Amino acid sequence: MTEPRIIGLKSRGQAVPRPAPTGLDGEGTLHDAVRDLITAYHDLNPTTIDELHEEPSPLEFMRYVARNRPFVVRKGASSWPSHKKWNAAYLSSIMGSTPVNVAITPHGNADAILHLSPTRALFVKPFETTLPFSAAQSRIQAQELDPAWSNATCYLQTQNDNLRGEYATLFQDVPASISWARIALKNDADAINFWLGNSASTTALHKDNYENVYVQVLGQKHFVLLPPVEAPCVNERAVLAATYAYGGSPESDSHVKEDMVVSIDGAGEGEDQSYVPFATWDPDRPEEHATPFSRYSQPLRVTLEEGDMLYLPALWYHQVSQSCNVEGLCCAVNYWYDLDFSGGFWAGSSFVRDVALLEERRRKEVHDDTESGAKQVQESTWF
Amino acid sequence: MTEPRIIGLKSRGQAVPRPAPTGLDGEGTLHDAVRDLITAYHDLNPTTIDELHEEPSPLEFMRYVARNRPFVVRKGASSWPSHKKWNAAYLSSIMGSTPVNVAITPHGNADAILHLSPTRALFVKPFETTLPFSAAQSRIQAQELDPAWSNATCYLQTQNDNLRGEYATLFQDVPASISWARIALKNDADAINFWLGNSASTTALHKDNYENVYVQVLGQKHFVLLPPVEAPCVNERAVLAATYAYGGSPESDSHVKEDMVVSIDGAGEGEDQSYVPFATWDPDRPEEHATPFSRYSQPLRVTLEEGDMLYLPALWYHQVSQSCNVEGLCCAVNYWYDLDFSGGFWAGSSFVRDVALLEERRRKEVHDDTESGAKQVQESTWF
Repeated sequence: MTEPRIIGLKSRGQAVPRPAPTGLDGEGTLHDAVRDLITAYHDLNPTTIDELHEEPSPLEFMRYVARNRPFVVRKGASSWPSHKKWNAAYLSSIMGSTPVNVAITPHGNADAILHLSPTRALFVKPFETTLPFSAAQSRIQAQELDPAWSNATCYLQTQNDNLRGEYATLFQDVPASISWARIALKNDADAINFWLGNSASTTALHKDNYENVYVQVLGQKHFVLLPPVEAPCVNERAVLAATYAYGGSPESDSHVKEDMVVSIDGAGEGEDQSYVPFATWDPDRPEEHATPFSRYSQPLRVTLEEGDMLYLPALWYHQVSQSCNVEGLCCAVNYWYDLDFSGGFWAGSSFVRDVALLEERRRKEVHDDTESGAKQVQESTWF
Repeated sequence: MTEPRIIGLKSRGQAVPRPAPTGLDGEGTLHDAVRDLITAYHDLNPTTIDELHEEPSPLEFMRYVARNRPFVVRKGASSWPSHKKWNAAYLSSIMGSTPVNVAITPHGNADAILHLSPTRALFVKPFETTLPFSAAQSRIQAQELDPAWSNATCYLQTQNDNLRGEYATLFQDVPASISWARIALKNDADAINFWLGNSASTTALHKDNYENVYVQVLGQKHFVLLPPVEAPCVNERAVLAATYAYGGSPESDSHVKEDMVVSIDGAGEGEDQSYVPFATWDPDRPEEHATPFSRYSQPLRVTLEEGDMLYLPALWYHQVSQSCNVEGLCCAVNYWYDLDFSGGFWAGSSFVRDVALLEERRRKEVHDDTESGAKQVQESTWF
């Protein structure tokens, strides 16, 4: 191939390719790229959750999975036996004194960040013990209904397929799988979980590697939902791991709140402390522990009423609080289906998280270079 | 809430959160993040294309859309009238002397990078003219079958829904839509295109904002496919735009190859040159014009035989070459369906591209800082 004749070239340098334009706003920094990712996502997606009034077909569901977008099916589980039969007396009659795992915390804050000061925090897991189901349920109700209650908070929240394990006698009252999810995802549920608690318990902002169908049975759950592209907003940090322990009399079975202590994990002779990566930003207290990207977060909020179903897509951050029914109970069931790690979704979500962490590190380095103040001050600003 | 008693804390500083670990290999640079994105994608996905032997259901198709992964349906279009009826005589009898748009280039290189030197390049569009269909088809065949042929290359490749426009009389021989795609995507085809060329024509590496169903009718097409996460591999650059022009006698209708010139766009008085963002790396010549990420590319390769269908997912880079049937023709039809810009796919793919361009810019700046050689040398290494 001989070089063709070229007309109109004004200089040789004119034909040297330039960097391709990014189209980023601002100066075109990595910060701009991360910000534009989040704002472009919100420009292209509604800031409210889709509400369906009947269960989706497998194809309709798959369209939501493809977009990784949540929806709620109002009254989607209202024909389930659980919706019709479950109440305090029924649950007690079926489960009786079966021993169940109970998560106990002073303030309902299991698996959550405990801020000790503006710059110091722990990731604290609950004290776990075993109680007869009926005793645990009574405590949950008493905390809600008895003004004199001052003991620790109980939450039945083992997320280990407990509805086919500890609570197997209740499993008959719910479908063995969610048919549209099973068909679309070509998989049975990997875990089906039973949750029983009261309004004192909350679930801190976190994400799961599962496609999640969440069904409210008693009371209400209030979800705050953040899409995976908002990883740069949640200020994920490696936080020192600890576990609540019970310092009171071993004979006591009422777990006085003041007797609970926080025990740093791995504090023993020759043991190692561990740091758990966890979101430290709370979308309900957006000014605290924010990153420069937190302001671009646009949380979706949805309350599940009794009989409602929520599709909570894989890798969405969620923070959950709850309200009780008149019996002082909040009860839910959820189905976890394996996330599909193939395609580009998983790798791409990890990339967003990695880039956000690198950008935070870079920002801290710039800060360290330019600030000559005390280390404590730097950490305060940084964290 | 009073501060709880804490056991086992060895120092106050121990409770200051650390940066969360990225899990990146190497030192944890932006380069590492981009590399790990590409290698993680390939670890989680096959490096061969799925082969189906019957058309998918809408749900099966939607699973592929959700993963943004291609597949080929062998003989999926073998019952179409086009597969049974189309040949040179039939096409000529239906289209006759209807005027059609013809893309003319010296070497079959329409909408492609023309490398002038290791550091200089143009993005050259074809000379477009109108010919009677039967004349254009004859030229396409003659170039393939007549050893004495030395004229320019003709390609019927207008991608403007031409099968419902210029070639509407042939549209009766193909389905009005691909039912599984139409149902799954809840949309009719946005454009349906007819392609007729010979083995001289190639399509340079590029991507489209469409979900694409590509159907081979005559001859073969050879696709090289790169997923959107490989944007950092393709060395996208802003390349000076030009168009082939015909410098020969206006009376000639044979377009002698040597009479074609490259005319820089906007070279006239008061006009502006333009630079087109385009991939400058060729996966079939991987050593040339590579980025530091090109080595991690794992192109999928698939040849479509007559009657085969390809699902080419949105934003996949594709480079295409072709082989002719015994009549010297390569003919295909494709259906473009709108890409769903919602969810995180579009925003995330743009983010990968942006970060890759920023990383290349950073690399060039480091290079400029450390090299004191002549500018020409730098550009050579950079580009």
